[in-house]
Amino acid sequence: MKLTNLFTKTTKDIPSDETSKNAQLLIRAGFVHKTMAGVYAFLPLGLRVLNNIENIVRKHLNRIGGQEILMNSLHPKIWWEKTNRWEGVDILFKLKSQTNSEYALACSHEEQVTPVVGSFINSWKDLPQYSKVNGTFPLSVYQIQTKFRDELRAKSGLLRGREFRMKDMYDFHINKESQDEYYEIVKETYLKIYSELGLKVYSVQASGGIFTENESHEFQAVCGAGEDEILYSESDGFAINSEIYDEYVAKGGKAPAKETLKKAVSAEVGNIFKLDDKYTKPFEVSINDKDNKPLTPLMNCHGLGTSRVLGVIAEIYNDEKGLKWPESVAPFKYHLITNKEKDETLNKQILDLASKFYSGNLVLVQKENGEFEFDDITDFNFPIISKDPSEFASEHVLWDNRENASIGEKLKDADLIGCPIQLVISKRSLENGGVEVRNRNSGESKVVAV
Amino acid sequence: MKLTNLFTKTTKDIPSDETSKNAQLLIRAGFVHKTMAGVYAFLPLGLRVLNNIENIVRKHLNRIGGQEILMNSLHPKIWWEKTNRWEGVDILFKLKSQTNSEYALACSHEEQVTPVVGSFINSWKDLPQYSKVNGTFPLSVYQIQTKFRDELRAKSGLLRGREFRMKDMYDFHINKESQDEYYEIVKETYLKIYSELGLKVYSVQASGGIFTENESHEFQAVCGAGEDEILYSESDGFAINSEIYDEYVAKGGKAPAKETLKKAVSAEVGNIFKLDDKYTKPFEVSINDKDNKPLTPLMNCHGLGTSRVLGVIAEIYNDEKGLKWPESVAPFKYHLITNKEKDETLNKQILDLASKFYSGNLVLVQKENGEFEFDDITDFNFPIISKDPSEFASEHVLWDNRENASIGEKLKDADLIGCPIQLVISKRSLENGGVEVRNRNSGESKVVAV
Repeated sequence: MKLTNLFTKTTKDIPSDETSKNAQLLIRAGFVHKTMAGVYAFLPLGLRVLNNIENIVRKHLNRIGGQEILMNSLHPKIWWEKTNRWEGVDILFKLKSQTNSEYALACSHEEQVTPVVGSFINSWKDLPQYSKVNGTFPLSVYQIQTKFRDELRAKSGLLRGREFRMKDMYDFHINKESQDEYYEIVKETYLKIYSELGLKVYSVQASGGIFTENESHEFQAVCGAGEDEILYSESDGFAINSEIYDEYVAKGGKAPAKETLKKAVSAEVGNIFKLDDKYTKPFEVSINDKDNKPLTPLMNCHGLGTSRVLGVIAEIYNDEKGLKWPESVAPFKYHLITNKEKDETLNKQILDLASKFYSGNLVLVQKENGEFEFDDITDFNFPIISKDPSEFASEHVLWDNRENASIGEKLKDADLIGCPIQLVISKRSLENGGVEVRNRNSGESKVVAV
Repeated sequence: MKLTNLFTKTTKDIPSDETSKNAQLLIRAGFVHKTMAGVYAFLPLGLRVLNNIENIVRKHLNRIGGQEILMNSLHPKIWWEKTNRWEGVDILFKLKSQTNSEYALACSHEEQVTPVVGSFINSWKDLPQYSKVNGTFPLSVYQIQTKFRDELRAKSGLLRGREFRMKDMYDFHINKESQDEYYEIVKETYLKIYSELGLKVYSVQASGGIFTENESHEFQAVCGAGEDEILYSESDGFAINSEIYDEYVAKGGKAPAKETLKKAVSAEVGNIFKLDDKYTKPFEVSINDKDNKPLTPLMNCHGLGTSRVLGVIAEIYNDEKGLKWPESVAPFKYHLITNKEKDETLNKQILDLASKFYSGNLVLVQKENGEFEFDDITDFNFPIISKDPSEFASEHVLWDNRENASIGEKLKDADLIGCPIQLVISKRSLENGGVEVRNRNSGESKVVAV
């Protein structure tokens, strides 16, 4: 994408009530726009990051048999009365239609997914267990969707919102063995997701769940803007909510000695629950077991706030100059900077080189030793994936082609926006033998010959 | 995707209040689940079609410089008061928070996009005109998002909903020339989008817009479930709302003689409006013109209901057996049917062949004369796009691998689900020399040698 085709600009104007680092940085860099406390619009750069995060989540959930669906925000009141959550959930938004029908604005979808799935299952055969050999997975559905919470106080920027993006998955089982097994599969998958997102995350027993029937885990990322505190060990991955350490040990839970653990403020970036029949029972979901007797399926549910994850990544990956996105979620991998030179020949040389890179005919390759080199692929009979190579390449390159800004201003913007690799093609870089390649994360810079 | 990994089933159970053909078919085939009148959840097959539709829309809008963003559903009351729409829009859902703040649940996003874009523009330089040579486009943003309308009566299945998916685009201009020019570009683009979606659509002057300042066009598809009536000519593409034909001609509008036009019930599948300064004025968006004087930008807006389009396609593309999706939006291109045979050798032969097709190592190619042939690409050094070929292939193939259903039942389901090409690998097809390839649209069937 060319910067002159991007309507956002970096700014120093931050709403006066915005005290969180993640929202401040995301607003300054033009990734989000604040609507009101806890409600943000995603602008082009921010939406690209959000899409990258959500597509990583999708990929991993599809691999464990997750079937993507898209449920609704408007829920009939009767669903939430059935589970005693119409009055029981204090952050539930409620609204009334012209015809006086009452709806919940969904903050969670157990009340919808249970009857939906229930309408398609009749027999134990509809709820298979995991089998690696046969490639079968339990019935597991998920959606990535906008959720609403009537928070008394929205805070921490994108971390605790009134309107936010979330992935929620629900799975159904004929017995505890299948339920427990898939719960562990999802737990492992979550850690893979966070790892690909660039987050070091610990899975911890949720405070309510110690040795109770309804097991639940939270996924905590060490992050100063979080609301929790964990005790953790980097070496063996053990982590626990610091407020339940003593109780956990007293009840016989195994944990490293307290003084060997690190303590840190953390942000919850996901949670998984064993719901058992909490929802299948009130919705009267019943199937036939192998002996043709009625069976109420068991459920798990698994949440992962994708816009919150975006906020947590922004909160962790930054320095005094701005954002430093992990490559997996960065809006663009490359931030290309050129300047208009007065000398026409030089100007043409710079633009030709930049266009070649932008259109994908010149690619930057990182060698095994970490060094970069350019590969000219104009002459190759390269299997182009997109029919229009410029469309494909422009997915990876943000080209600051502005004519009215200096290299200095452009570098400042590039540092704030935070794409992993900056390339500067200028009079100076050419005099030094090529293109200046700067690593936003390490700060290293080197001129690479073309 | 293997059918045994799909939790939905075809069904004969349709909610008794569901009278529209599109919703009946989509429910029977397992594409959607009805939450309540005007509110539907998208199940895996339905979401695939919706994604296909929305990605076609994206592709075309990106080509004319559209920048994708994602705005919010919760809007502060003050925005809608500014434009007199808090009281003025009767289908606006309103809700109150715990802290007594009032919000609109957005049915449209002029109230949000205007201040958002306004915060990024200062000068006429920020609002370029279209230039084919320079590759510049006017500032144009769009989103594809869930919208809410408090309809008194939701009806026609997915055609008039209370919660639905919509693409809305907004563009900003320094003068009428640029505004008018881009309006025409979007109008052309809309026709390209509908054409790729498989819809024959006419652009008609909206009834309110005859020779008034605020021009507006509707896009109408001939469709029995629609709410409008048009007079149209297939040969030259002329179309007009039948109720304004007389007035239009009386005021000097050029139109073919009434008796030469066809009359049909039609469904609106999009609309475009010239908003001028209707929103930029109350939101006090002001930039400097070339003479450094204040200028209020002009706006257009362009709506396209993506879930409604899905309903219209379902309403048009079907027969007594079920759905017949155009290839561009079909959930899968191929519906592969195999049966478990008692003879082990034969069974293995069938499964091997099916697996080969499913994993992308055997591809069906349509020759110039329309005939099909299979290409075995196992031996080729084929540039595989996905690293895991089976992941890639399974995007295109729905494999009915059930062991407990007959070929007859499977064909019935395949006809109902409506993927464009059905392949049957069975004892009979192998005896006849290969794979039976059936065209869902034409009904033609042929055995193609492998």
